[in-house]
Amino acid sequence: MVTGSSTHKCSQSEPMGDRPQTIGIEELMRDLAEPGRRPSQVCMLGGGAPARISEVEAVWRRRMREILDDADAFERVVACYEPPRGPAEFLDAVAASVRQCFGWPVQRDHVVVTNGSQSAWFLIVQLLRESCGAKRTLRILLPRVPEYIGYADLAGSPTPFVGALADPVPTGSRRFRHQLAWDRLRVIEAFDAIAVSSPGNPTGGLLEAEELSRLTQWAIERKVPLILDHAYGPPFPSIVFRSTPPVPWSPHTVLCLSLSKLGLPGLRTGIVVTTPERAERLARWNAVAALAPGGLGPAIVTPLLRSGELERLCHDVLRPWYRERRDRALAFLDEYLPADAEWYVHEPDGAFFLWLWFPTLTVSSYELYQRLKAKGVVIVSGHYFFYGRGSPRAARHRFIRLSYAQPDDVLRRGIQVLGHELQSLLRKAPRFRSKSPVADCTKSQTHRGR
Amino acid sequence: MVTGSSTHKCSQSEPMGDRPQTIGIEELMRDLAEPGRRPSQVCMLGGGAPARISEVEAVWRRRMREILDDADAFERVVACYEPPRGPAEFLDAVAASVRQCFGWPVQRDHVVVTNGSQSAWFLIVQLLRESCGAKRTLRILLPRVPEYIGYADLAGSPTPFVGALADPVPTGSRRFRHQLAWDRLRVIEAFDAIAVSSPGNPTGGLLEAEELSRLTQWAIERKVPLILDHAYGPPFPSIVFRSTPPVPWSPHTVLCLSLSKLGLPGLRTGIVVTTPERAERLARWNAVAALAPGGLGPAIVTPLLRSGELERLCHDVLRPWYRERRDRALAFLDEYLPADAEWYVHEPDGAFFLWLWFPTLTVSSYELYQRLKAKGVVIVSGHYFFYGRGSPRAARHRFIRLSYAQPDDVLRRGIQVLGHELQSLLRKAPRFRSKSPVADCTKSQTHRGR
Repeated sequence: MVTGSSTHKCSQSEPMGDRPQTIGIEELMRDLAEPGRRPSQVCMLGGGAPARISEVEAVWRRRMREILDDADAFERVVACYEPPRGPAEFLDAVAASVRQCFGWPVQRDHVVVTNGSQSAWFLIVQLLRESCGAKRTLRILLPRVPEYIGYADLAGSPTPFVGALADPVPTGSRRFRHQLAWDRLRVIEAFDAIAVSSPGNPTGGLLEAEELSRLTQWAIERKVPLILDHAYGPPFPSIVFRSTPPVPWSPHTVLCLSLSKLGLPGLRTGIVVTTPERAERLARWNAVAALAPGGLGPAIVTPLLRSGELERLCHDVLRPWYRERRDRALAFLDEYLPADAEWYVHEPDGAFFLWLWFPTLTVSSYELYQRLKAKGVVIVSGHYFFYGRGSPRAARHRFIRLSYAQPDDVLRRGIQVLGHELQSLLRKAPRFRSKSPVADCTKSQTHRGR
Repeated sequence: MVTGSSTHKCSQSEPMGDRPQTIGIEELMRDLAEPGRRPSQVCMLGGGAPARISEVEAVWRRRMREILDDADAFERVVACYEPPRGPAEFLDAVAASVRQCFGWPVQRDHVVVTNGSQSAWFLIVQLLRESCGAKRTLRILLPRVPEYIGYADLAGSPTPFVGALADPVPTGSRRFRHQLAWDRLRVIEAFDAIAVSSPGNPTGGLLEAEELSRLTQWAIERKVPLILDHAYGPPFPSIVFRSTPPVPWSPHTVLCLSLSKLGLPGLRTGIVVTTPERAERLARWNAVAALAPGGLGPAIVTPLLRSGELERLCHDVLRPWYRERRDRALAFLDEYLPADAEWYVHEPDGAFFLWLWFPTLTVSSYELYQRLKAKGVVIVSGHYFFYGRGSPRAARHRFIRLSYAQPDDVLRRGIQVLGHELQSLLRKAPRFRSKSPVADCTKSQTHRGR
């Protein structure tokens, strides 16, 4: 009863509109919730659920016991409304963490807590609409499409998103990277905000230092907010496998953080760090839309932030754990995917996804998703991550996202089934084939984002 | 830094527009959060925070320990995303509770869980907008103004709310009741939904059986949803002090429930019970706007719902506790408010508020709020509860809402200060004075809601 039937109508022969025909994030969250709670035969390589890491979970459990052992701490958390902006001691601890990580001049009044990062985004869109007024339609530029599936529908219809494909650039055998296409970006005229995830979701790619710096400069020049989604990035959970570029501060910066990928998605705690004025307006929207954020996430994490334990946990446990998973997943791909066919993996800098590109796939990625699901393997079809006016059409059906936040046997079995399925689907594909997979992907990019 | 400065510009001489000039719910939530966590000299009679009742809190603490003592239950709650609709076992338990309480034919698929009741409302408004389309402006009828402060701003501007003043009808010495004004209501033409809280917030008044039945019939005739906000009502927390009228089911019913007033506001758990089709659409919006609801509220409450312990807790502990508070508060009013001046209390049927009416108040209720706050007593100015196109102007400044979810000494001290303040503010008031306080309030009602 919970899942209901899918109303998807995606097929290879049917060209799709600018937006997915159903709500991708809904399908993803349902797929995620179903098998995640009843470990079964399903290989869950879809969704963005963090891994169950016993060393990390032991810390949450210890903190919960500490809260319960205190005379009144548990009651203060569950039985009281937090301020609309979140508890002051948590705001202080987050600000200190951000100061230390990025050197930004931020204090308590730069921070707002929400019921999850998705809700933070929802509030940010309300704020942008408020600034934009009725005088014109809101436009949010996504300079690095493919971009996070969860943004696609939260701003309603017609979509405010203007998507610009980040060019896939080969970086080695079986590897590529989506790189910002400045030539096309800099001529885009009117927009009210720029938004980008780093590490990217779905790609796992970090923005380069130069990209970050240029985006920041651009936001300053255009006087628009630059929304940086660090759900997987520093200062926490900081699931990144190479040194992260410095993230510059400006009054246009809107940094989105979350406790979810640390391993606390059930506590729905999102965080925004921005100017005090913008934070104040977000807190107001938080009061209107949700009264207040939940208190348990902040209560569990505050002392860990203060003592530095959270930073150590990220650095010494989370990061090596995911890096090892990533390396296993890459090895399984080499082992099980057709050696004689074209397939590429985005440079896996961080988060816990592999973003796979099959230039010669003879069915749509959504059909691949359905075939795999029928065999008990859940992945996410890549087409959902290409959205917004101006984002490319033809390329979108040849990507999938795999999560590697799974035990070895699940990962191996899932990728084995994927490899088996691809044997027949990548083989005969003359009409999709081109000499350069990069050219094949980009040639369909007609830039309608201006 | 968390509170910021108030930007209110309310004065008696300045006529106010149709909507409060600032966001009432934001002010209320800030007032609430500040002193609530640092018990101090402040008498917090504002806000809707539930009481700290040790017998109730002992149950939450016991449940939390049970969850921690289970091998994996805590981790399943904090480390996993729930389905967008909420955990199935909780949906089942809520459906069973509603079946038993109202006899409605509802199952799991009639129920959706959200991050608090406020967020549920936010999603409901999205749903109504979706149904309404771009073809016309959304209109939500509030048949019983004054109505809950928290709705006022969550649907953005221009307000979709059409407010109809429920006539104040004398019911005894110092008592009155806002009663639905059918003559004015039935001629209102176009609207997309009807919404009403029962027990009413701010009034504490229950809808009568005949009112409920007529509203339901009206929703059926007009083919619009009837949104019933039972945040304080049955089946839980059921803070009502007289027998509640039967609540009829129809495919137009949208029942909003919450775990907050049970004493769990920090866990942000709202619930909607409606048709499976509407529940499905709400779950979709929940995925889009919040990914998933938090899991701890459902985890704590599910076994208590199943075993009947929650019902007993409501009936044997919560209800008598609040009833005793109410009686104390009424006694304090008699003791401290000017005996020779006009003041009236809405029939206190339920919730934990007293809704006071001062027909001869010589300052605005907002100025009274400010004066009291300066003396360390926080109440809520009544003007916030009169909103929506068509809701009356003149009467709105002569009401205040008091919460009695407080210990005796706080309640006594707060009402004592209120009484002292009113000595000078109710005495000389010839220009507001009228023979009949009812006529005085209603004469300003120009019905612009049609």
